[in-house]
Amino acid sequence: MSDNARVRDGGSGRERLVVIGGDAAGMSAASQARRLRGPDELEIVAFERGHFTSYSACGIPYWVGGEVGDRDDLIARTPREHRERGIDVRLRTEVTAIDVAGRRVRARDLGSGAESWTPYDKLVVATGARPVRPDLPGADADGVHGVQTLDDGQALIDSLSRARGRRAVVVGAGYIGVEMAEAFVHRGYEVTVVNRGAEPMSTLDPDMGRLVREAMTGMGITMVDDAEVTEVRVDDGGRVRAVVTADAEYPADVVVLGLGVRPETALAAAAGLPLGAHGGLLTDLGMRVRGHEDIWAGGDCVEVLDLVSGQERHIPLGTHANKHGQVIGSNVGGGYATFPGVVGTAVSKVCDLEIARTGLREKDALRAGLRFEAVTVESTSRAGYYPDAALMTVKMLAERRTGRLLGVQIVGREGAAKRVDIAAVALTAGMTVEQMTALDLGYAPPFSPVWDPVLVAARKAAAKVRGGGA
Amino acid sequence: MSDNARVRDGGSGRERLVVIGGDAAGMSAASQARRLRGPDELEIVAFERGHFTSYSACGIPYWVGGEVGDRDDLIARTPREHRERGIDVRLRTEVTAIDVAGRRVRARDLGSGAESWTPYDKLVVATGARPVRPDLPGADADGVHGVQTLDDGQALIDSLSRARGRRAVVVGAGYIGVEMAEAFVHRGYEVTVVNRGAEPMSTLDPDMGRLVREAMTGMGITMVDDAEVTEVRVDDGGRVRAVVTADAEYPADVVVLGLGVRPETALAAAAGLPLGAHGGLLTDLGMRVRGHEDIWAGGDCVEVLDLVSGQERHIPLGTHANKHGQVIGSNVGGGYATFPGVVGTAVSKVCDLEIARTGLREKDALRAGLRFEAVTVESTSRAGYYPDAALMTVKMLAERRTGRLLGVQIVGREGAAKRVDIAAVALTAGMTVEQMTALDLGYAPPFSPVWDPVLVAARKAAAKVRGGGA
Repeated sequence: MSDNARVRDGGSGRERLVVIGGDAAGMSAASQARRLRGPDELEIVAFERGHFTSYSACGIPYWVGGEVGDRDDLIARTPREHRERGIDVRLRTEVTAIDVAGRRVRARDLGSGAESWTPYDKLVVATGARPVRPDLPGADADGVHGVQTLDDGQALIDSLSRARGRRAVVVGAGYIGVEMAEAFVHRGYEVTVVNRGAEPMSTLDPDMGRLVREAMTGMGITMVDDAEVTEVRVDDGGRVRAVVTADAEYPADVVVLGLGVRPETALAAAAGLPLGAHGGLLTDLGMRVRGHEDIWAGGDCVEVLDLVSGQERHIPLGTHANKHGQVIGSNVGGGYATFPGVVGTAVSKVCDLEIARTGLREKDALRAGLRFEAVTVESTSRAGYYPDAALMTVKMLAERRTGRLLGVQIVGREGAAKRVDIAAVALTAGMTVEQMTALDLGYAPPFSPVWDPVLVAARKAAAKVRGGGA
Repeated sequence: MSDNARVRDGGSGRERLVVIGGDAAGMSAASQARRLRGPDELEIVAFERGHFTSYSACGIPYWVGGEVGDRDDLIARTPREHRERGIDVRLRTEVTAIDVAGRRVRARDLGSGAESWTPYDKLVVATGARPVRPDLPGADADGVHGVQTLDDGQALIDSLSRARGRRAVVVGAGYIGVEMAEAFVHRGYEVTVVNRGAEPMSTLDPDMGRLVREAMTGMGITMVDDAEVTEVRVDDGGRVRAVVTADAEYPADVVVLGLGVRPETALAAAAGLPLGAHGGLLTDLGMRVRGHEDIWAGGDCVEVLDLVSGQERHIPLGTHANKHGQVIGSNVGGGYATFPGVVGTAVSKVCDLEIARTGLREKDALRAGLRFEAVTVESTSRAGYYPDAALMTVKMLAERRTGRLLGVQIVGREGAAKRVDIAAVALTAGMTVEQMTALDLGYAPPFSPVWDPVLVAARKAAAKVRGGGA
């Protein structure tokens, strides 16, 4: 790597785009910029710390669980494919500093240890998120794994072949926790989920989280709630053998940490780029870092505007990262695009249990200064008389007086989760629950009761808003 | 039945509500009115020509096909249950005249033939739709059936036990036609669908209808397009034995007519109530018949406002009928509710093929004076690497210049149909396809690719609108 003093020299007009991070946001940005501007106009250099580019981190639990047979199935575009499109991908290369004033980044080849500066005209920061690692004795033992990157997933799968038994302990009961619990169930493991909170899935209200706990218990998963891990016990060979809480010890042949993630913004912070209350980079609607004309950021390292609460949030999700990348690439490439914000939609599943949410939980609404009515209804995925009609519970929050939809949570079986999209669009449009009662949703007995469960909830919520409530 | 001269006599203040038609719209209206006003305030009399009340006509194909084991499973509320709630249901009683000036209806007991007048203070017309019956030799033969009412379904099932073979011919390839084709496939019949149009499912654009035809052919169903039935041939016993077109003869042990329905408004027309261009009753947004303070109408006998084209349409669907009933009942009961209109959502399936549409087809848009861009994309129901990811085709129409979403059609396998709800809500909200590209839809590998198929279509449509097109 050469240390160019200036990039746009010699009057060639060719600019250099540097991308830090080779997964969804970074490589989507690079690809979209390349579509709009050819190699004669724009040089693109992408630095990636790991071995892979453009992969589906969300797919890792299904690879571990065996539904996805091959690691490469998770890779949307390999480094070679990117290079064929004129993107200079540099793997195993970690950016160690951003010199904003000098418009250059310092990168280290993790193989050789060599470091050098690379100038940029435009910079994309897509450094992702880092998993929360507890500061515990034994947390770095052999057999204790995160599942944040494809390298992490590979390390876990390699480790399973060395495990002596089939007892898995998952620490944390958020999306990663419950999805990894499913993965181990599929592998025939005895699974224990140790969770700090009173219920799993703290992205749901506790009354809905309880339904998840009951269902997971019914699947034979041991759910340990209100429990803080104090130690990871290790055998003589340095391999994990148990997870210890204040009250008990859970034997473990493998441990997965699913304690959530934080924006990976140490580099950005050191460079003086603006961070928000959740530690993520702050951008404008075009995903340009605030106050920096030539720096964009997207994916798990940024905060996004929550359109319902009007506040910034950190929501690490591949679907946002891909959109961010598209928007950044369009803008870098001379087009125009914006990412207006999110409504907080997320779906997941544990075996045949589907879990979905969008908008605000009760505590989010209170924190945002909103008063609301909450209703919960039970309905079915199909007409009640149709085979395999599956129960689902829908909780809906509506603002008092205005009746504006604030959030929806759904827990059920087949056909439950994606119904949350109805609410996601309604939230984006600022609909009231009264307006929602008239929505013209698809009805036929194999697909829905004559009143879709979301309409049933909307009717109940609208009645409660009209009635006033406490 | 007594012939009261006045209902609201003796200063009691008790009113009489008369309902004509005992299925979804009529009985929902009666039930909702009863919730708001007790029997001391409001007497409710409901006339029903058939043997049943409040049943799911949409479920009949699944009863015939055997997925629903028992006829009574399709009945949401029996006449007795209605009577227990203080609704005087009179079965096998046909209303033969409405005397608007005299505020009374004439009804005939189909058993005894006796007729009498019943006065009303408020009237609900919920006479439903009548199937189109072709004026053909043999169309009334034994073994030729409609599936409009539960009585029709019972007659068909009774008839199947008398059929000598297992060859079914379905005339018509709309929702009823394709659903009945599935029903006969499930029963192990050899199935032929004879269709007047070039493709089945004329509620879709022909390019999407073609996908349905190809899939149905792949299921072993014989699809005969561009064919007009000229005769139904009958054996010596008066039972159907073949369906004849200009070009061919199709042996048949049973024939189902699925040629669509028209509003059943002869009674209303004779009474001078206002009908629209499609022969349906015209109402205001509260479902009150235009120009008639005390008469409401809902369900398959009315026209509804299409919110996308701004024009009235006739859309016979149980989901609308139920909403109409709720609105009418609320207004009759002294509350306030409106039915703002539809966007034209409908979903259906043929075996494992899912079919969905909302908004305008190309020809609807042209008829409404709209110019549009149309795009078609192929995507999958789940992440491509996830097991059972099923292909789907999404077609999207957006208005030129404004980019406003005009319609979506989806044909695919599991997980395809209900995705149309995303577009249904977006249409209701008047979103542009550009706005739709930023929708925060639920993503996880078991539920969607990282770009939901609807988002992929929106992106392509937005690009085409921006690019101008021809």
